[in-house]
Amino acid sequence: MASLRTLYAADGNPPELKTNMNVDFVINYRIPSDAPVEAEAGFTQLIEALTKAGLASEVRRGVDHTSVLVFVKVASEKYLKSRVYRERVQDWLYGVRIKTPEKDVDKIFEDEPIVDAERLRMVYLLLTNPKNEGGAGITPKTGQWKYVESIFPLHNHAFNRKWIKQWSSKYVLNEEDVDQIRNQFGEKVAFYFAFLQSYFSFLVFPAAFGFASWLILGQYSWLYALVNSLWSVVFFEYWKKKEEDLAVQWGVRGVSRIQLPRTAFQWDHEAADPVTGEAVKVYSTKKRLQTQLLQVPFAFICLLILGALYLFCFSVEIFIGEIYNGPFKSYLTFLPTIILTGLVPTLSTILGNLAAQLTEAENYETHDAHDAALTQKIFVVNFITSYTPLFLSAFVYMPFGNLLVPYLDVFKVTAEKISSSEKLTTQSFQINPDRLRTQVIYFTVTAQIVNFALEAVAPIVKRKVFKKVKEVQTEFTHKNEKGDVVPADAPEEAAFLARVRNEAELDVYDVATDYREMVVQFGYLSLFSAIWPLAPVSFLVNNWVELRSDAMKIAISSKRPIPWRADSIGPWLNALGFLSWIGSLVGSAIVFMFSGDSNGPNGEPSSITAWALLLTVLCAEHLYLAVQFAVRYGLKQMHSPGLHKERAERFQMRKSLLAETLDNENDVETKPLPDIPTGEKITRAALEEEARQASLRGHGTPEEAFWQRQQGMDETISIGRSLISKMAAANKTAKA
Amino acid sequence: MASLRTLYAADGNPPELKTNMNVDFVINYRIPSDAPVEAEAGFTQLIEALTKAGLASEVRRGVDHTSVLVFVKVASEKYLKSRVYRERVQDWLYGVRIKTPEKDVDKIFEDEPIVDAERLRMVYLLLTNPKNEGGAGITPKTGQWKYVESIFPLHNHAFNRKWIKQWSSKYVLNEEDVDQIRNQFGEKVAFYFAFLQSYFSFLVFPAAFGFASWLILGQYSWLYALVNSLWSVVFFEYWKKKEEDLAVQWGVRGVSRIQLPRTAFQWDHEAADPVTGEAVKVYSTKKRLQTQLLQVPFAFICLLILGALYLFCFSVEIFIGEIYNGPFKSYLTFLPTIILTGLVPTLSTILGNLAAQLTEAENYETHDAHDAALTQKIFVVNFITSYTPLFLSAFVYMPFGNLLVPYLDVFKVTAEKISSSEKLTTQSFQINPDRLRTQVIYFTVTAQIVNFALEAVAPIVKRKVFKKVKEVQTEFTHKNEKGDVVPADAPEEAAFLARVRNEAELDVYDVATDYREMVVQFGYLSLFSAIWPLAPVSFLVNNWVELRSDAMKIAISSKRPIPWRADSIGPWLNALGFLSWIGSLVGSAIVFMFSGDSNGPNGEPSSITAWALLLTVLCAEHLYLAVQFAVRYGLKQMHSPGLHKERAERFQMRKSLLAETLDNENDVETKPLPDIPTGEKITRAALEEEARQASLRGHGTPEEAFWQRQQGMDETISIGRSLISKMAAANKTAKA
Repeated sequence: MASLRTLYAADGNPPELKTNMNVDFVINYRIPSDAPVEAEAGFTQLIEALTKAGLASEVRRGVDHTSVLVFVKVASEKYLKSRVYRERVQDWLYGVRIKTPEKDVDKIFEDEPIVDAERLRMVYLLLTNPKNEGGAGITPKTGQWKYVESIFPLHNHAFNRKWIKQWSSKYVLNEEDVDQIRNQFGEKVAFYFAFLQSYFSFLVFPAAFGFASWLILGQYSWLYALVNSLWSVVFFEYWKKKEEDLAVQWGVRGVSRIQLPRTAFQWDHEAADPVTGEAVKVYSTKKRLQTQLLQVPFAFICLLILGALYLFCFSVEIFIGEIYNGPFKSYLTFLPTIILTGLVPTLSTILGNLAAQLTEAENYETHDAHDAALTQKIFVVNFITSYTPLFLSAFVYMPFGNLLVPYLDVFKVTAEKISSSEKLTTQSFQINPDRLRTQVIYFTVTAQIVNFALEAVAPIVKRKVFKKVKEVQTEFTHKNEKGDVVPADAPEEAAFLARVRNEAELDVYDVATDYREMVVQFGYLSLFSAIWPLAPVSFLVNNWVELRSDAMKIAISSKRPIPWRADSIGPWLNALGFLSWIGSLVGSAIVFMFSGDSNGPNGEPSSITAWALLLTVLCAEHLYLAVQFAVRYGLKQMHSPGLHKERAERFQMRKSLLAETLDNENDVETKPLPDIPTGEKITRAALEEEARQASLRGHGTPEEAFWQRQQGMDETISIGRSLISKMAAANKTAKA
Repeated sequence: MASLRTLYAADGNPPELKTNMNVDFVINYRIPSDAPVEAEAGFTQLIEALTKAGLASEVRRGVDHTSVLVFVKVASEKYLKSRVYRERVQDWLYGVRIKTPEKDVDKIFEDEPIVDAERLRMVYLLLTNPKNEGGAGITPKTGQWKYVESIFPLHNHAFNRKWIKQWSSKYVLNEEDVDQIRNQFGEKVAFYFAFLQSYFSFLVFPAAFGFASWLILGQYSWLYALVNSLWSVVFFEYWKKKEEDLAVQWGVRGVSRIQLPRTAFQWDHEAADPVTGEAVKVYSTKKRLQTQLLQVPFAFICLLILGALYLFCFSVEIFIGEIYNGPFKSYLTFLPTIILTGLVPTLSTILGNLAAQLTEAENYETHDAHDAALTQKIFVVNFITSYTPLFLSAFVYMPFGNLLVPYLDVFKVTAEKISSSEKLTTQSFQINPDRLRTQVIYFTVTAQIVNFALEAVAPIVKRKVFKKVKEVQTEFTHKNEKGDVVPADAPEEAAFLARVRNEAELDVYDVATDYREMVVQFGYLSLFSAIWPLAPVSFLVNNWVELRSDAMKIAISSKRPIPWRADSIGPWLNALGFLSWIGSLVGSAIVFMFSGDSNGPNGEPSSITAWALLLTVLCAEHLYLAVQFAVRYGLKQMHSPGLHKERAERFQMRKSLLAETLDNENDVETKPLPDIPTGEKITRAALEEEARQASLRGHGTPEEAFWQRQQGMDETISIGRSLISKMAAANKTAKA
């Protein structure tokens, strides 16, 4: 069976990639060898639930003999349309769509056809929504559905081939490219690519400036640090605007208001909603707040464990590299690296799991709140693992090295004990001024390449190995069997089914991993790039590749993602803002300490004037905040196509609604002009007539009398004029 | 003629206060003695414009012989209703109102009658809106309407009496009291009182804590400074929430989106709006940005002029008070105070005018933008005038006094020259450690009292003097005349007209002045109250009086304000946030420098460790920002009646709109359940039948074939089950 990669490499378009057989989703249903009866019962329930939710199903043999694949599509296109229509109306009610939905349903789908992403999302909701909301209520791997391994849509390989081909022959991506992704994989994935593309384009400037300052200004240039910090402000504020813009263009602005409930949410009690009167599930805010407070010890634990590990390895490294002169030195040098590469990923995973459990315990009602809380914790872990080594070098090793080195004698003693009391020779300690730069180069170049290799190559290797193992297993099974009892695939479907079985074994694509990588990179840029101004050049190259390799990852080595909607990059935005801000503090401190003739503080804290350092940091931070304020104001004045579109739609909406509503004004006078009575001369007769009428009407209140003194405009004018001329005359007399 | 004050003091309810004769607005039309003909023509135009805008008018003799009063009311209640209805529909379209306007117009006004403020605002808009928007287009004092002195509504004295009486016999004001103000004077004024009331209630805590720490902790307590800063965060965040809440309750949330155009706006050219296609007036953003940049030199000029003045007076004061020992010392001590009280108000006025001109030059399209820009500049001027003396004492005099005093010899030389070379005796200089506290007491107690006196008493005195002058003038005029040529008032109206003439001479109430006062006070509290913890006690007392005296000011010594709408306290909110933030910096610096045994740095900068000071400030600021973040998050979790109401309204709106819209879904299937076919056994006959049908239909695409393999739910189930059991069996065999 050819792998996807080889299929893609082939020139032709193999028929099994051409069609998805109209399948919307595939359910991979596991058959445990120890409970086939239970699995059969579950399968029956599954098909019934699907049918009741308005979905058609077909079943085929699954991967090897351990699962069956259930193919799902919407039974009736009309039903799908009605669900989409309902969602669009809901969007309108929540203010996500501005245009009032047309009364003519056919016209709606003519104006705005259902794109793939919308269709698949709708079907996925039919599969997973609770039964009382019209769904099949399937929750993979839990409860009743514990044998449902996964639910996934099928890749559109025709699109994927075109996509990958286009991108690999193109230098700059444009909005259309991102729009395509949106239509295929939904807004959540599209936002990632849009962000990466914006970030990439913005990187061109610091890369050019960084290269120039590497040539001209050298390292630790305050000018570079300043420009870099300003750039990070501009980029952050620009992206916030761009994000809003894209959300409007994609018609998802404010979609985060429509929350999807989490099935794992556990409630204390049900209560009637005071507003809607419906029964809602309530979880005490106080209880959640208490759990949330656990984040503080969690952050401390992370800092403590990882900090201690780093500090230990750091000390060992310095001891071995710069003090120790005994035997095995050339081998021992690798010791800290080995410890770190062995322990950090393990610890990260453990802390990551802890974070996930903590977030679970916080028990959020909605997916978004859950994701945001999890992201926040993951960010803390990543912040510590990524930046601690550099913090230690910049703010401990360089300024305090000479003071701290004597304490490293503890290692010497240990080493002596181990090598049985033989006296060790040690060389005198000398701060290594290049240490910081070497580290930055490692993190910005080497680590990026390693990371890329892990990300792009590892899954392929992993899959190949797994496949080999399975093949061997299957062969072994076949040997023991007397012929295959399971019917073979129909020949016209065989290639298609092979492809689907292939996709069923792919990983799930998690956009958060990719975001995390980019945010950590942005942090290196914002915090430490003054140490080595070529960092942005490296990032620029890396991200060009990253954009394409992420596309490949989705197309080839992952299941097709569920096309969720989103109106922003979510909690990562705050992480970016935070890093940009911290960058102003850290960057200015580094430049202050290391710039000048010498290569930094050379291990003695006395060579730094603390007040000047603090003043620099304080000024840098406030300058940063002031610039942020100004940039925000400036960008607000600028034209934005998304907001423009929104304004136009709002205007249209208002206009049509106004016309509609003011039609009801029949019993209110709309003509602003009351009759203007032609003046009657104030004759005795007229006055008498008026008095007579007033007495006839029977109410001569002072108010009425007041307003009846001058009847009509002309009377007011003539009386006024006579008053004016009399007064003017009197004034003249008085003056004379 | 009795003044309003005496009328209010009287026990009974004089008839002239009981009724406003149904008058909505009064126009005071000036008659210049040098151009009576022009005035007559203008008057005619005025009455015509009023009539065309649907307003009825009556004319009466005005104040003395120099003006006529034009009384205006809406000619037809129906017309007023139609305008109010239009505005309410507009509000709904702009999202200010959530509830869809009823189709039945009568029911609307039954559910939500027109309150005084709404009526008056509507009439005012009829008076001032441009003619193409159905108004009379009157712009007092400019262009065609240069003789229109003022347009003002009449006080509702029955309400005012009740109001003042209630408030002066009540300790705490509640929401109803503020609601009353809203119905009478509009949301803009009501927001001021709501803010003042919230601020007053919140002050109770720092007043109590301040008093306690004055007793126990003494001055310059870090605990007090910390608590005070936290309090300012909580208050600020609370008010932001409260403000939103009130806006929702009053149905004005988002009303700032509906902008009133400024008549003074000057445009470069007209262009078709790309969205609406209407002709809009365009002013180049770039040009405005250039003008706005003038704010930077403006702030510098303010700082320079006022700073130099303060520095000069400050030096003179120290020289005379603490060094000079020559003749006239007791008189000369007052010199700096005299200079300051003479010059600061003048300079403030000049700078205020400059600010107004600058804002005018920035040429904003809307009133709100104009007000915000002006407020910002006024805030800068006030910040400098209010806080410079304290900044000089705390950060120049106390730490650097001993270094700077020798430079003050320049005064000595000058003094010697003036007093003809006679040698002056000078005493040796000694830092006065009480100076800072004395200053704070002056600003927080004495200045508040002086201010109150000026604000409450001065207008009364001024009016009395003016009245006397006028009376003398009139007497003089009358002596010269042979009898009054102007007809006397009708006896039944005389008292009412006298009252109106009285009101015509009152000042215009400007809520910005009152805000400014409170914001400056909040600044003293946030920045300097650690110096003297009794400051909040003084403010608490002051604000109790302030609340009531401001009410009196509106009711008695001002014209009734135009009841504008607003959805927040506007630009003052930013000023408060800024002061609260700066407070964390200044407060921590002061506490760091002055706390401890000694009474501050005693004139020698060496006694301060600069790095520790900067570190304190840096930590204080970031603690402040962290607390702000936490408080914001905490408050967001809390229940808010306004937002609750909004949610309920939104829910209702969605429900009714959904019901309405989904009625149109007739041609879309809404039933989620397609037919569930009862399973047919897979017999050869059935399969043949199926194949035959497929060939009959003529299209046997692979997709159709794929989905026709299992027809209906039962077939899928049975095939799936057989697959499962076969596989399970195979697996078992394999294992065995």
